[in-house]
Amino acid sequence: MEFTIQRDQLTNAINTVSKAVSSRTTIPILTGIKIVAHEDGVTLTASDSDVSIEQYIPMESGDHQWIENITPGSIVLPSRFFGEIVRKLPGEQVTISVNDRFVTTISSGRSEFNLNGMNAEDYPRLPQIEEDKVLSLPADLLKTMIRQTVFAVATTETRPILTGVMWNLSEGILSFVATDSHRLTTRKATVESTSELSFDNIIIPGKSLIELSKILPDDDQLVDLVITDNQILVKVSYVLFYSRILDGTYPDTSRIIPQNMKTEIILSTKEFLGAIERASLLARDGKNNVVRLFTRPDGVVELSSNTPEVGKVTEEVVPSSVDGEDVKISFNAKYMIDALRAVDSGEIRVEFTGAMSPFIIRPTEHDWILHLILPVRTNQ
Amino acid sequence: MEFTIQRDQLTNAINTVSKAVSSRTTIPILTGIKIVAHEDGVTLTASDSDVSIEQYIPMESGDHQWIENITPGSIVLPSRFFGEIVRKLPGEQVTISVNDRFVTTISSGRSEFNLNGMNAEDYPRLPQIEEDKVLSLPADLLKTMIRQTVFAVATTETRPILTGVMWNLSEGILSFVATDSHRLTTRKATVESTSELSFDNIIIPGKSLIELSKILPDDDQLVDLVITDNQILVKVSYVLFYSRILDGTYPDTSRIIPQNMKTEIILSTKEFLGAIERASLLARDGKNNVVRLFTRPDGVVELSSNTPEVGKVTEEVVPSSVDGEDVKISFNAKYMIDALRAVDSGEIRVEFTGAMSPFIIRPTEHDWILHLILPVRTNQ
Repeated sequence: MEFTIQRDQLTNAINTVSKAVSSRTTIPILTGIKIVAHEDGVTLTASDSDVSIEQYIPMESGDHQWIENITPGSIVLPSRFFGEIVRKLPGEQVTISVNDRFVTTISSGRSEFNLNGMNAEDYPRLPQIEEDKVLSLPADLLKTMIRQTVFAVATTETRPILTGVMWNLSEGILSFVATDSHRLTTRKATVESTSELSFDNIIIPGKSLIELSKILPDDDQLVDLVITDNQILVKVSYVLFYSRILDGTYPDTSRIIPQNMKTEIILSTKEFLGAIERASLLARDGKNNVVRLFTRPDGVVELSSNTPEVGKVTEEVVPSSVDGEDVKISFNAKYMIDALRAVDSGEIRVEFTGAMSPFIIRPTEHDWILHLILPVRTNQ
Repeated sequence: MEFTIQRDQLTNAINTVSKAVSSRTTIPILTGIKIVAHEDGVTLTASDSDVSIEQYIPMESGDHQWIENITPGSIVLPSRFFGEIVRKLPGEQVTISVNDRFVTTISSGRSEFNLNGMNAEDYPRLPQIEEDKVLSLPADLLKTMIRQTVFAVATTETRPILTGVMWNLSEGILSFVATDSHRLTTRKATVESTSELSFDNIIIPGKSLIELSKILPDDDQLVDLVITDNQILVKVSYVLFYSRILDGTYPDTSRIIPQNMKTEIILSTKEFLGAIERASLLARDGKNNVVRLFTRPDGVVELSSNTPEVGKVTEEVVPSSVDGEDVKISFNAKYMIDALRAVDSGEIRVEFTGAMSPFIIRPTEHDWILHLILPVRTNQ
């Protein structure tokens, strides 16, 4: 194998695939990056067996010649050294050639490295995916939907299925659901798809989605999603992102969303968020980070918390409107902060159904986002 | 105690003094910030007993009214909570008032905190310093001199005296010396002072200097240094910075600087630094991070390192000039990288006196900086 490549192109590709490199050394070859030189370009691959990322760099694109003098072949190079070497090389071009016994020469300007590589034949194959269910949507929409849901997945493995975000596509509506059993988030969006295309109970690990999010661009270029029984493939220009899908059945969350609303408060998201953040400052070290909320007779929403050894705090928020019964409820401030940061709306509607029942936060502007939080029982 | 203050002014003062707050809780009151309200302003103080920082905020400065309605008094507030509260308060002004039993009300806009404080009478007194030895120099010069020396102090406590930078003032020349016994750095500068003013063997902990550096502005406003037998006081506008001085006698380092130079190489600092950084990439995990340097018959300086399990690297640097005997020497790349980053000169002069003797790095442009590095014995 041998080729000469623009260093910037190679650096970008290494940065992209590196996100999937395994940090565990139980399978040593997965700590490396696989490089394959084809007649028409070079492919880099990394995988930690949950997530795999493959980037193709074509020989030329538009007016740009990115790779020259390709002799096809393959090698696996230790990712940490390979990445740092390429980033620090002095020249604009890098020549990579594999000698015998997998020793690889990386040279640029007056710098020459000989790095011990591994046999690419020993690198695990990526999943073979048949492209029968393909959904296209804008990259920035997918990225936003991930950001607005992934924070709510469970971080403990008590119920592994809850560490993923559940995807569902039905009648042109894509919906994401995440819950850790204390709070729940749903995000829906209309997508262009053929009416025959639908799927349900596709549960993608939260960690995979966080990595996917990092490689999604912030523009509306279309990405393709290919979904199979145990793998999802996301195609973003020259990058292929694979993730395994969690095995099991996601709980039916539709029934826990209460319908019998007793109080509705409309508030400025920013003011409410600031007040909750301050009200939780002293509570943070206490268990559950509990903040109390009650509606005062003068129409003001009061938030408070009390940590006897440190002190107490009282916050007032003047709502746009309050309708219904008085409210007196306690909740985990972190769940509220997460929800308010993800809601992307100037005003929110909070709907209460009783001191010990879940309450709902939605944007006032649309119905595509819903957050549900379980209150906390307190002695006060 | 009570006063109302501009939140920005208070936030800045908290940020400044917080650098001295103790992270250990062995003396609980030192985890707090002492606040004293005088008739004409407010003083904030923090200390970890090695370093103390005091900032004064006057009631008004120029056209700005910073503090109003002062009732003199004092309190100590837990620094972590106090800092976070003030940073997140909603209004432009903050009112702080101490109630009975040291409970302190902090209010701003529709937010009100009650924080448990401590009795300021229990806070340790700062050292009393007689201002007989005062030296004035520009803040940016002091900051540069610290940056160019402090990296070379010892980080282990084997010889505690080496964890400090030694300051000396004699005949209008201020010099800083730092060594960890493997490498040595000196930085000198002319300062304006009366000829009677001199001091020697003033050893200031490296950690204190790193903190001092953070509060020094990047301009040439004059700062005052007051030096006593066991404390140094640095005055930067309204901030007083105190540090203890290390007890003991600093080794006489003047004699280890070799005079009988055998080879002199002049190089581009940037090219040499890049080559050393790359040459050390594979060696980093090995002990001592050793890089070899030798002068080739064709006049090129070759750097190399070899870590059999990972690979090897060869770098070439074309020097501006080489004079004297051939050189073949090994050294710790980290020491060379530190020195080259601190040298602030486009070209450097490296002077060798033999394969097992210390070598010297200086800027070609002036004689104010000198780095000395001991070579490493290798089997090759």
